[in-house]
Amino acid sequence: MTTINRQIHLVSRPTGEATADNFKLVEATVPDELQDGQVLVRHHYLSLDPYMRGRMNDTKSYTAPQALNEVMGGGTVGEVVASKNSGFAVGDKVVGMGGWQEYQLLSGDLRGTLRKVSTEHVPLQAYLGAVGMPGVTAWYGLTQIIAPKEGNTVLVSAASGAVGTVVGQLAKVRGARAVGIAGGPEKCRFVTEELGFDACIDYKQHTDLKSLSQALKQACPNGIDGVFENVGGLGLDAALQRMNAFGRIALCGMIAGYNGEPIPLQQPQLLLTNRLRLEGFIVSEHMELWPQALTELATLVGTGKLKYRESIADGLAAAPEAFLGLLKGRNFGKQLVKLI
Amino acid sequence: MTTINRQIHLVSRPTGEATADNFKLVEATVPDELQDGQVLVRHHYLSLDPYMRGRMNDTKSYTAPQALNEVMGGGTVGEVVASKNSGFAVGDKVVGMGGWQEYQLLSGDLRGTLRKVSTEHVPLQAYLGAVGMPGVTAWYGLTQIIAPKEGNTVLVSAASGAVGTVVGQLAKVRGARAVGIAGGPEKCRFVTEELGFDACIDYKQHTDLKSLSQALKQACPNGIDGVFENVGGLGLDAALQRMNAFGRIALCGMIAGYNGEPIPLQQPQLLLTNRLRLEGFIVSEHMELWPQALTELATLVGTGKLKYRESIADGLAAAPEAFLGLLKGRNFGKQLVKLI
Repeated sequence: MTTINRQIHLVSRPTGEATADNFKLVEATVPDELQDGQVLVRHHYLSLDPYMRGRMNDTKSYTAPQALNEVMGGGTVGEVVASKNSGFAVGDKVVGMGGWQEYQLLSGDLRGTLRKVSTEHVPLQAYLGAVGMPGVTAWYGLTQIIAPKEGNTVLVSAASGAVGTVVGQLAKVRGARAVGIAGGPEKCRFVTEELGFDACIDYKQHTDLKSLSQALKQACPNGIDGVFENVGGLGLDAALQRMNAFGRIALCGMIAGYNGEPIPLQQPQLLLTNRLRLEGFIVSEHMELWPQALTELATLVGTGKLKYRESIADGLAAAPEAFLGLLKGRNFGKQLVKLI
Repeated sequence: MTTINRQIHLVSRPTGEATADNFKLVEATVPDELQDGQVLVRHHYLSLDPYMRGRMNDTKSYTAPQALNEVMGGGTVGEVVASKNSGFAVGDKVVGMGGWQEYQLLSGDLRGTLRKVSTEHVPLQAYLGAVGMPGVTAWYGLTQIIAPKEGNTVLVSAASGAVGTVVGQLAKVRGARAVGIAGGPEKCRFVTEELGFDACIDYKQHTDLKSLSQALKQACPNGIDGVFENVGGLGLDAALQRMNAFGRIALCGMIAGYNGEPIPLQQPQLLLTNRLRLEGFIVSEHMELWPQALTELATLVGTGKLKYRESIADGLAAAPEAFLGLLKGRNFGKQLVKLI
């Protein structure tokens, strides 16, 4: 009996906001018999991440554009269901970049492509979040760019998201004060009460620069030493007004501007007057640090010291709407799609 | 006979553009007899620098505001004309921060305040330019932030100015390609023909982003690896569009916005997509590197390998107009005021 592999393809590029019409559900099949060297993975979860919005455009960016009429790329976790590859056995739990589809067929040298993981202390889907790319992103920006000293204040936007969640908790582990920005009282409560941030600002209560800047002043009485920026726009403008001399900005995402025109930075002269260092980074370009980062993250998750939250959409067909919601901040924590 | 010490005071703060009315010429006197420990310096040249504009405002910045009704601060070179201080003798050539006045009376421990210099191989006024604060500023930003590799392309704005002049030549010494931005064909010719930059763009020929960006593309066929930014505004926006991945931006000045409202950075997302590092700096906060920098700069000037140009205003009374001209780019090279 032929097994159906449902997939989601990108079929058109957005003009302005991305829409569900940009995607299409397509049915393919998986072979009944594998060839030598092949591995078949059944995906359990796929990861939805803001960077995917950039790949939908056909513009120069740090990743190649997503090809039209092909499976949307993305991180996946799953289980090997068939194997003629000596490196993998049926039942192995694996992390890969399988994309928005139910199965992935792989072959050849899979080092760097498919990685076996242990689910003894860490749930499988956490390898897409706190113990995966978002977690390492948080770890890299915090430890390699912000490098907080004890007592420093670290501000993180999208604080309840997959990356922000980890940034603040890692900052606390290092003796820093962690302040978040998130959307709505429920997310803010989670950030302070569950994750242990020292404060969280609801950006929906502060729609202009003056108001947000004032809120930051109250939440950061000693100023801000490090900013982990996931959003850009108003939040970054306000943070710049509150930064201490020699502050560091890890520029990780600017999701506020992903759907349309770039959002200008209003007062770039503050970068000079406060002698700030700003660094844009992409975590996949620092693979040499992943083992160190993953070791710390897995230990913290395994021992219950690193908490996180997930928004789980059900079934592949729900992926486009869940992704569009992520871009609008409708998720709460790591956005996943559960396939099985 | 009493000696008159003419001074220029800041008597009001600008609203918008600085004007001559913000300054006032005042006559003071110098004592006939020094007390123990005192040194009297007759200034030969005073230095006019863009950072002084920031000090005219009463706003938080990296330096304290210039006090009203006091002598405008600033770098000076001169000669000791009287001394009851064992560290200095009449005839010593000295560099200090004597401000906009003809004489300065100093006392106490003068280490770090007044420095004896040799004029054997280096002209006295060069200690206000290529072998002084502007030169070290260029050295710091180029070597400590941009750190060009051989074959890299380094772009510098205000390329014919006191700092820019040195940036490009130091970049060439390190095997990089140097490209300048300057105002007008005469300055551009000087930058390429006299200083040896590989190219220079006349920003007056490119009044919109698209045009300037296109000119940069032609002048930097391999993209831009390092930007030494003295001006900000349009030039920085255009440079961002042409930067290579992992480029470095040494943010030294943003003179384009000094006279009014901040000039937004139009496309801050390029800092992320190109994984750029931007660092604002103030050279006076890195005193530990001055000896190393000054050694290189003095050697290059003394051997004729580091060229520069000066605009010299005549007499203290000419200082305000010369300073206002500097803010509009009317100077050509290091702006000095000759007092004797």
